[in-house]
Amino acid sequence: MLIDYRSDTVTRPTAGMKAAMDAAPVGDDVFGEDPSVNALEARSAAMFGMEAGLFCPSGTMTNQIAIRVHTRPGDEVICDWTAHIYQYEGGGIAANSGASVRLLQGDRGLVTAQMVREAINPDDVHKPRTALISLENTSNRGGGSCYNLEDIAAIRQVADDNGLPLHLDGARLFNALIAKSQSPSEMGAQFHTISVCLSKGLGAPVGSVLLGPKDFIHKARRVRKLFGGGMRQAGSIAAAASYALDHHIERLAEDHHHASLLGETLEQLPWVSKVLPVETNILIFEVAAPHTASGIVAALKEKGILAYAIAPMQVRLVTHLDISEAMVNQTISIFKAL
Amino acid sequence: MLIDYRSDTVTRPTAGMKAAMDAAPVGDDVFGEDPSVNALEARSAAMFGMEAGLFCPSGTMTNQIAIRVHTRPGDEVICDWTAHIYQYEGGGIAANSGASVRLLQGDRGLVTAQMVREAINPDDVHKPRTALISLENTSNRGGGSCYNLEDIAAIRQVADDNGLPLHLDGARLFNALIAKSQSPSEMGAQFHTISVCLSKGLGAPVGSVLLGPKDFIHKARRVRKLFGGGMRQAGSIAAAASYALDHHIERLAEDHHHASLLGETLEQLPWVSKVLPVETNILIFEVAAPHTASGIVAALKEKGILAYAIAPMQVRLVTHLDISEAMVNQTISIFKAL
Amino acid sequence: MLIDYRSDTVTRPTAGMKAAMDAAPVGDDVFGEDPSVNALEARSAAMFGMEAGLFCPSGTMTNQIAIRVHTRPGDEVICDWTAHIYQYEGGGIAANSGASVRLLQGDRGLVTAQMVREAINPDDVHKPRTALISLENTSNRGGGSCYNLEDIAAIRQVADDNGLPLHLDGARLFNALIAKSQSPSEMGAQFHTISVCLSKGLGAPVGSVLLGPKDFIHKARRVRKLFGGGMRQAGSIAAAASYALDHHIERLAEDHHHASLLGETLEQLPWVSKVLPVETNILIFEVAAPHTASGIVAALKEKGILAYAIAPMQVRLVTHLDISEAMVNQTISIFKAL
Amino acid sequence: MLIDYRSDTVTRPTAGMKAAMDAAPVGDDVFGEDPSVNALEARSAAMFGMEAGLFCPSGTMTNQIAIRVHTRPGDEVICDWTAHIYQYEGGGIAANSGASVRLLQGDRGLVTAQMVREAINPDDVHKPRTALISLENTSNRGGGSCYNLEDIAAIRQVADDNGLPLHLDGARLFNALIAKSQSPSEMGAQFHTISVCLSKGLGAPVGSVLLGPKDFIHKARRVRKLFGGGMRQAGSIAAAASYALDHHIERLAEDHHHASLLGETLEQLPWVSKVLPVETNILIFEVAAPHTASGIVAALKEKGILAYAIAPMQVRLVTHLDISEAMVNQTISIFKAL
Repeated sequence: MLIDYRSDTVTRPTAGMKAAMDAAPVGDDVFGEDPSVNALEARSAAMFGMEAGLFCPSGTMTNQIAIRVHTRPGDEVICDWTAHIYQYEGGGIAANSGASVRLLQGDRGLVTAQMVREAINPDDVHKPRTALISLENTSNRGGGSCYNLEDIAAIRQVADDNGLPLHLDGARLFNALIAKSQSPSEMGAQFHTISVCLSKGLGAPVGSVLLGPKDFIHKARRVRKLFGGGMRQAGSIAAAASYALDHHIERLAEDHHHASLLGETLEQLPWVSKVLPVETNILIFEVAAPHTASGIVAALKEKGILAYAIAPMQVRLVTHLDISEAMVNQTISIFKAL
Repeated sequence: MLIDYRSDTVTRPTAGMKAAMDAAPVGDDVFGEDPSVNALEARSAAMFGMEAGLFCPSGTMTNQIAIRVHTRPGDEVICDWTAHIYQYEGGGIAANSGASVRLLQGDRGLVTAQMVREAINPDDVHKPRTALISLENTSNRGGGSCYNLEDIAAIRQVADDNGLPLHLDGARLFNALIAKSQSPSEMGAQFHTISVCLSKGLGAPVGSVLLGPKDFIHKARRVRKLFGGGMRQAGSIAAAASYALDHHIERLAEDHHHASLLGETLEQLPWVSKVLPVETNILIFEVAAPHTASGIVAALKEKGILAYAIAPMQVRLVTHLDISEAMVNQTISIFKAL
Repeated sequence: MLIDYRSDTVTRPTAGMKAAMDAAPVGDDVFGEDPSVNALEARSAAMFGMEAGLFCPSGTMTNQIAIRVHTRPGDEVICDWTAHIYQYEGGGIAANSGASVRLLQGDRGLVTAQMVREAINPDDVHKPRTALISLENTSNRGGGSCYNLEDIAAIRQVADDNGLPLHLDGARLFNALIAKSQSPSEMGAQFHTISVCLSKGLGAPVGSVLLGPKDFIHKARRVRKLFGGGMRQAGSIAAAASYALDHHIERLAEDHHHASLLGETLEQLPWVSKVLPVETNILIFEVAAPHTASGIVAALKEKGILAYAIAPMQVRLVTHLDISEAMVNQTISIFKAL
Repeated sequence: MLIDYRSDTVTRPTAGMKAAMDAAPVGDDVFGEDPSVNALEARSAAMFGMEAGLFCPSGTMTNQIAIRVHTRPGDEVICDWTAHIYQYEGGGIAANSGASVRLLQGDRGLVTAQMVREAINPDDVHKPRTALISLENTSNRGGGSCYNLEDIAAIRQVADDNGLPLHLDGARLFNALIAKSQSPSEMGAQFHTISVCLSKGLGAPVGSVLLGPKDFIHKARRVRKLFGGGMRQAGSIAAAASYALDHHIERLAEDHHHASLLGETLEQLPWVSKVLPVETNILIFEVAAPHTASGIVAALKEKGILAYAIAPMQVRLVTHLDISEAMVNQTISIFKAL
């Protein structure tokens, strides 16, 4: 049997989650009549102290809708060069919103208030109008790194000083909250809008929620329709997400522990040249030459372990709900024997 | 209890369908690993004689993806002025694809080869480049009207003569096939691409399938990612759709019969001035002045019947899986007593 | 020698205009330092009671910039189906702005307040957001027809009632003002923004001016840069336009008179079935079967007269600065002898 | 009197050029009937061994049209991070074409074949489709640096290996050709399309020419119309450009010599910390702390010398047709006295 560390998106619904899906009341969400969707949107918003929420089929959609509502063609989005919205959403910033990017050189995906401040364009026809600052927490490409609240607050100050909205790509936001012992409401207070993914570490099969002010969510609902993201009886998948919020947040600490264990092992192995700091459930290591990332990934696959080569010399592992302690121990044995 | 004729999108999964959803094997569809999604895509394509399929959260998404792949900004789409893609998809033809529309004046949503031929632009910088012909079958705004195959074949000939792709918005395609005794494969042979909705008359909770050549679906998958339509463990909703294809096609004849019964009743009532021909499961009637569509809709609602005012003097009723014969009889009694 | 009635865009600079071009002081307009451009922008704005102006290479650009500033992707523009912005600008409403069109069925290109009011969409995710009303005066495809001020005022009232901007495509605005004895300032008072073309009846070689509030023109300048419409030493062509404003407005009455003379002749000819009312410098007539528009245009060309077949049975003639009384008389003789 | 080194765009037409403008035959270029425009397009294309040319109001427009024709929304353009198309065209890559950027870290704006090769995306829905490679020669932000032909040929090889078009932003292409003793035809042979600016070092008042295959220029003409770049009697400004091609190419060597002289002086001054290599007519120097770029620019302005602060510690000077040897000597004196 394969042990799949490729991503925390690969989890399958648990028995309890499936029971919740089966029991969920449903209706036509395009008419706003699905009780399970409405409940999920309301509770997610309340959790982060936001006015309203919008359930969407994916985190790419919640991010792309947020960018579209915050900007117009000819505007510019400030984000780290590693940001998921720039690197892994198919070029959607430009394709969906006609917006340019100003790419920061952050530290493992984390940027500073100073970097953001210097990246804001003057009012000059040659330059796009700066319209949005977007952070990612945890940072995927940064190896699960996460922000301190005071660093975010300093960036929010720059946003306020310049009348700019601040968006959070919270694909793995609960991992950050657990790792840093932060509360959803204190995190929510720092951002104008947040995309919260429910189908990664939380283990729901499908979906993300976009949170923000009522007026923003009203506009976001229009864009969701445009993209074709309005689903009909989405209640069963929304109920799965609600179940995940009830049962799968605290347990993320286990995933982080598992990632740490794997990291400690890797640091001592000859085919590993460097392990990036493990803060949450993502582990990135560099392979020692003459090995290559793709070579290591292939060797691991033969032993039943799936991982991702994210760069010629970098491999990523992600722990999640479907990775048990036994699997981690087995993985450690395989690593040592490789 | 309400009898809901607003749309055939309001159906809720049956017990059998829920069992199928619960039993469905799932995986990460973004990695192409959800067996239930893969099965649905393959069988839908095979049914219509197409090379490949793509499961999406809605029919708006399948249509909008098709338009985006077939066109580029500055191109023009030919369709009837009543077309769902123009009237009810949030302005997506322009907003998602930058494409103009050339609107035909069809008969209850059905256009002719001659109309299409005359609407193709010459090669002139003042005019957008004609890039796509799109039909809708059945026509929603046309009251469930449907095409004869030979009329479609004539339009296909115009498309071929001009090197243009022909797309079908099949939001209610199975209603047309049942009403006209046409087969999926003979319909499929006429079009380059088809959007087939599974959450309307067929009763699945969520989703549509886009069908076409492999190369087209490859590009469509890119656009689905851009729009954020790539879902993770979508298998449960795909299984619901497969269940619908197994069990809910032939029974559409009942919905058509119900619509006919309602139409015959309405034709004899004093507050109705005209009933459009009933070909499938949609019934549009015009109210007699001094009544108004909104007035009639409100009066019906008081009696427990939900309908839609689609124009100041027009009301639409749609029959579907959740409308039983008993409900139809009850509705007829209420109509007569109004 | 050819007598060219194809369009009033074909005029060549007069000797006086060329002298003005040669004498014009110039500078780098991208830096805002071309005195001749600045003067033209200021005087045009003042003439129509507007705050600011922006000189652009064409009327298509001034219209397309206006639409882009007034809308965002997913919005809708209300205009007549004959409007130049929809018919002859390459599909730019959709391609440049991602905006949909709601096409009115006006009378020879002129629409009413009632038509506009009924075309405004409700707040519904299925429909694009109505964001702009655009009129064309005179109407090109309507045969040079022009509005009464009170009819425009009624449309402005609808705009105000709905918080919508009202734009004027003034490709031939001075023809309308002369024909209706209206002043630029009373016309300017009715619109939020106006595109005034200087290279049609006025006889300048290149350019249009976009007029509106300062904040609007500030944004328009950004879009002009995006489109690449920012020119460097544009002073010589701006000076030609200023010369036209000084010398070529009043004389438009001659063009109108010439068009009337031609129309009166055509009404009596057997190969003409109908002449549209001649209000300004455009004359549209329908050819009598079995003749065709292209046949008549070809026959006229053999006699040295250039005209345009704008539909299978419609021919358009446009009078202008380079059409003298002698040419009109010669044309009349040719018409009679055809 | 001011000595204006802000840009080579500030030149004013010479007496000879004005005579050429006055004598130019003109016609309606939208109808393809302006002889002076047609001549300029034909000769420019022939010069670089290209099939066809298109005259446009600016180099931003020729670049933006090229990008639009080469790409579609969701595609990606590879260029250096300093590229004019990314830095100074208002965000047009995204706003006009919906295309993403992949930014290379070149040496003073010049990139290598290896950099380009590594930047091409795999076929993966998460990544935009790589669709265009764009070079800039000379590089503006790189301080007038220019390519060796063999380095371009290596990049062309990468383009060919991957079926990608290679575009050249030739805003100052003739400066590169003069500095490197390259011929237009050998440069033209390396690229699929070229934007050649005529209003910078060449001294024409307005315009650039886009060069490429016939089919490409046919599509480009459509996009020019969409952007509103189609001008009517553009012959006078086209004639100015033709005059510049006849008389102002060889003399660019003087501008380069002037820039060198200024650079040699600056290298010896205490308020200058570094002078970038001077290859053509652009000179970038870094100011020594505690001075700042804006402080130096202000001090120079008081002495009648205009320059540009392009970064907090960087100043740019550009030599051109309107900078005489006497002015350069005067500038050197002022520099030394500052």
